[in-house]
Amino acid sequence: MTRSRLFLFDTTLRDGAQTTGVHFSLADKLAVARMLDDLGIDYVEGGYPGANPLDTEFFAADHGLRATFTAFGMTRRAGRSAENDPGLAALLEARAGAICFVAKAWDHQVELALGMSLEENLEGIRDSIALARSRGREVLLDCEHFFDGYKANPAYAIACARAAHEAGARWVVLCDTNGGSQPDEVERIVAAVAAVIPGERLGIHAHNDTEQAVANSLAAVRAGVRQVQGTLNGLGERCGNANLTSLIPTLLLKPGYAECFETGVTAEKLGTLTRVSRKLDEILNRTPDHHAPYVGSSAFATKAGIHASAVVKDPATYEHVPPESVGNRRKVLVSDQAGRSNILAELERLGIRVEKDHPTLGLLLQALKEKEAEGYAYEEADASFYLLARRILGHVPDFFLVESFSVNVERRWNDKGELGIFSDAIVKLRVGGEKLISAAEGNGPVNALDTALRKDLGKYQSFIEDLKLIDYKVRVFQGGTDAVTRVLIEFQDAAGERWTTVGVSGNIIDASFQALTDSMTYKLIRTGATV
Amino acid sequence: MTRSRLFLFDTTLRDGAQTTGVHFSLADKLAVARMLDDLGIDYVEGGYPGANPLDTEFFAADHGLRATFTAFGMTRRAGRSAENDPGLAALLEARAGAICFVAKAWDHQVELALGMSLEENLEGIRDSIALARSRGREVLLDCEHFFDGYKANPAYAIACARAAHEAGARWVVLCDTNGGSQPDEVERIVAAVAAVIPGERLGIHAHNDTEQAVANSLAAVRAGVRQVQGTLNGLGERCGNANLTSLIPTLLLKPGYAECFETGVTAEKLGTLTRVSRKLDEILNRTPDHHAPYVGSSAFATKAGIHASAVVKDPATYEHVPPESVGNRRKVLVSDQAGRSNILAELERLGIRVEKDHPTLGLLLQALKEKEAEGYAYEEADASFYLLARRILGHVPDFFLVESFSVNVERRWNDKGELGIFSDAIVKLRVGGEKLISAAEGNGPVNALDTALRKDLGKYQSFIEDLKLIDYKVRVFQGGTDAVTRVLIEFQDAAGERWTTVGVSGNIIDASFQALTDSMTYKLIRTGATV
Repeated sequence: MTRSRLFLFDTTLRDGAQTTGVHFSLADKLAVARMLDDLGIDYVEGGYPGANPLDTEFFAADHGLRATFTAFGMTRRAGRSAENDPGLAALLEARAGAICFVAKAWDHQVELALGMSLEENLEGIRDSIALARSRGREVLLDCEHFFDGYKANPAYAIACARAAHEAGARWVVLCDTNGGSQPDEVERIVAAVAAVIPGERLGIHAHNDTEQAVANSLAAVRAGVRQVQGTLNGLGERCGNANLTSLIPTLLLKPGYAECFETGVTAEKLGTLTRVSRKLDEILNRTPDHHAPYVGSSAFATKAGIHASAVVKDPATYEHVPPESVGNRRKVLVSDQAGRSNILAELERLGIRVEKDHPTLGLLLQALKEKEAEGYAYEEADASFYLLARRILGHVPDFFLVESFSVNVERRWNDKGELGIFSDAIVKLRVGGEKLISAAEGNGPVNALDTALRKDLGKYQSFIEDLKLIDYKVRVFQGGTDAVTRVLIEFQDAAGERWTTVGVSGNIIDASFQALTDSMTYKLIRTGATV
Repeated sequence: MTRSRLFLFDTTLRDGAQTTGVHFSLADKLAVARMLDDLGIDYVEGGYPGANPLDTEFFAADHGLRATFTAFGMTRRAGRSAENDPGLAALLEARAGAICFVAKAWDHQVELALGMSLEENLEGIRDSIALARSRGREVLLDCEHFFDGYKANPAYAIACARAAHEAGARWVVLCDTNGGSQPDEVERIVAAVAAVIPGERLGIHAHNDTEQAVANSLAAVRAGVRQVQGTLNGLGERCGNANLTSLIPTLLLKPGYAECFETGVTAEKLGTLTRVSRKLDEILNRTPDHHAPYVGSSAFATKAGIHASAVVKDPATYEHVPPESVGNRRKVLVSDQAGRSNILAELERLGIRVEKDHPTLGLLLQALKEKEAEGYAYEEADASFYLLARRILGHVPDFFLVESFSVNVERRWNDKGELGIFSDAIVKLRVGGEKLISAAEGNGPVNALDTALRKDLGKYQSFIEDLKLIDYKVRVFQGGTDAVTRVLIEFQDAAGERWTTVGVSGNIIDASFQALTDSMTYKLIRTGATV
């Protein structure tokens, strides 16, 4: 069976930029475009040249992408010729192989929002496409509100799609703009459109407002479309766009799609998907969604003891695809509910070899239960679990000894008569025979302590210089300022490795201190520091 | 057209407890069960009595729920009679109206994971259900791996379902255990099962591993099942279970479902869904997913300027359902009437009378927006909102002035050669003409500061002596120890009144200080202290 070509269109840099809290710099846009190109995406939509200064700048250069770099903008305004429309002029000036126009396909919206007649809107579609085609551009038309429009007035929605197709648009993209359509509606409506316009010329653009953007996109593919639009990590306004990070593996790995379609993403590149997803979060300084399908750090994590032993016997039990196929990995969580098999699996992953019946394994299980009863949470804190296991099963060197520390927070009036808040820390360490004293200021007490701790580690300083604090989480148990506090801290090194440590204490500073020193010790062991 | 009854089954407390990083205390479980009951969920699955000490305790009491409280556990083991199986005994001891058994329906898994014959597995299903029925329990059977099992050996998967049905199970639940099935497969397979067992006896239990748990659940409903299992906020192992928070509004509001089905959730209770979702996150100290369908704070947020003006002209442009229907609200960058009426309602609740068109109301709206952009969260902090409103609309007396404070945390060796951690605080206050200096020790820096602050408030001391700190919560935004910290503090007085205040700062001590002093000021105003 020959497979049909299915095209992937990414709008992370255009629709994804509408996400609450997301701001791309020019450098960010460049990095994301390159990453998408490398992954094998067919179309990279860059933004709105002309309407947005950043995007105008982004579109001024040739980025040398293999993918078709696409500029987005509106069809010509009412009462203007396409040649005299400044919006169109900016689109045509952009260095983009394709132009994606957007036009409304819902009669009510055309009249209400645009205040133009239905026929004028069709003319605008035809004129704009014809002009862009005459300038040698590949053209797409996003039919905004297509599905709501079709439900209200099918003839007019189809007329918009047909006008674009006849004017020479390579793709007519059916948009579920407010994200409310259901997969069965999408499948039925796309099938009706595909009876008029060949599926090889149709695309789908879905939003996630009922948590079905992925299902809607796949329903449209089953009904005939051959282009899927979406964003990395499902970025987008409101609840986001269709998530390409979920769609791509499903299209490449699942029966019903894998044997029917071919995309620009190879099996090898699919193996970089988890990295691509995390990289985008890093660029945008967002916390990755641990539960994201395929690429989340928990997507292949097993917590229940009975599940853990089953997944080791037969991965298909709780793994619908092999984690490595998307560059992810299995994670067997260690918790007080866990059995021996969870722990053995996790130890093996961490490179600690233990015989299944070794008596110290029982000691480790016991220690784990006691620690978790105190409030420690090892399922997230892999590095603290590693240290706990090595302390019991083997040995952890005392690279450094903290003799004392002191953290001070003061709220007082400064010289200029302003009320300010000041944090500083002093740390006294012993490294080898050397006594080291460091002091630092910080934005808060933990930041001050962290800065002082990592300021001078004597002969080990070079090992920890590339550490970057990525995430800091606090949870207070039982209520009351004198309750137990758990702190989780995530660090990253220059090689991109990440690890999390945990600290628990009645005192938040002390809990943070435990997690910080665990993290430093972990890094020293993993990079082969010796006492 | 009469609508069919569709039953909602919640497994937040059982499958949801498998979520990485989620730990329910007994009090948490009670609170969640009550919340689900109040929402109108039909079945509340509580956990595994017998297999888990917490769940055994949870099932020991009668919680007086209207919903059917359900215990979960395995069918009898191989080589045991149902009467002699300790697992079954624990299930029957639990105070639960229904028992949900789980049994494998995938031939390969029965042999591999359970090491029993296919016939033995069927006998286990029959015996376990018969015993529970004879003890007067309503029975459900979760057919684990049903869809993968059906794809491998349809006759055996159906035989498992049929055995349960014939043994008297009220519900036969088809589980997509590893979450890899696609909606079209689910629809086709459910239709085949519904030809053998009436849909009124079938349920669906989907997982989100391809981001289609919601679509799979709805596909099953279209194919005939009349029970849907899921969790609040889509909690669950790996990528989570089917998200009831998305499913419920779709079932109640969307054509194709709304006119066909009736659930236990009324339109009025649907209006509490956003609150329910946020409350669960609060209980678990998880950051709410701003982009969650229907209930996320950004689910009805419009960022693009052109979208914002269109949505004001016609909400249907970018809102697929009215935000109020699920207790959420529109968020646009322009000031809107909805915001004004929300605020008026909240002010009235707090006993602050303002005319609807009073100009300072606009100032309050503006201040609220600015504060929320900084990270303040007034939805939870009623007392801080009260003070903010009074500061702008009226007047808040300066009962006391904090001139300065200093908090110190030290880790050092004590006289006995033990390493200890010590926290103390000094606070300098001015009350009337009096200057007061107090110092205190604490279990942590916030506790020390709180104790010192409330030690001596001069002439107001009698007003605050009955204050008790009930809850202290910390959330850090954006990652990094130098990120923004939000602190929520709940106090209670001798009369039992409770109130919450909020503080936001780069510094956790400063954020706590804001919330603590707000709380004291609130108490002084409410008890009629005068300057």
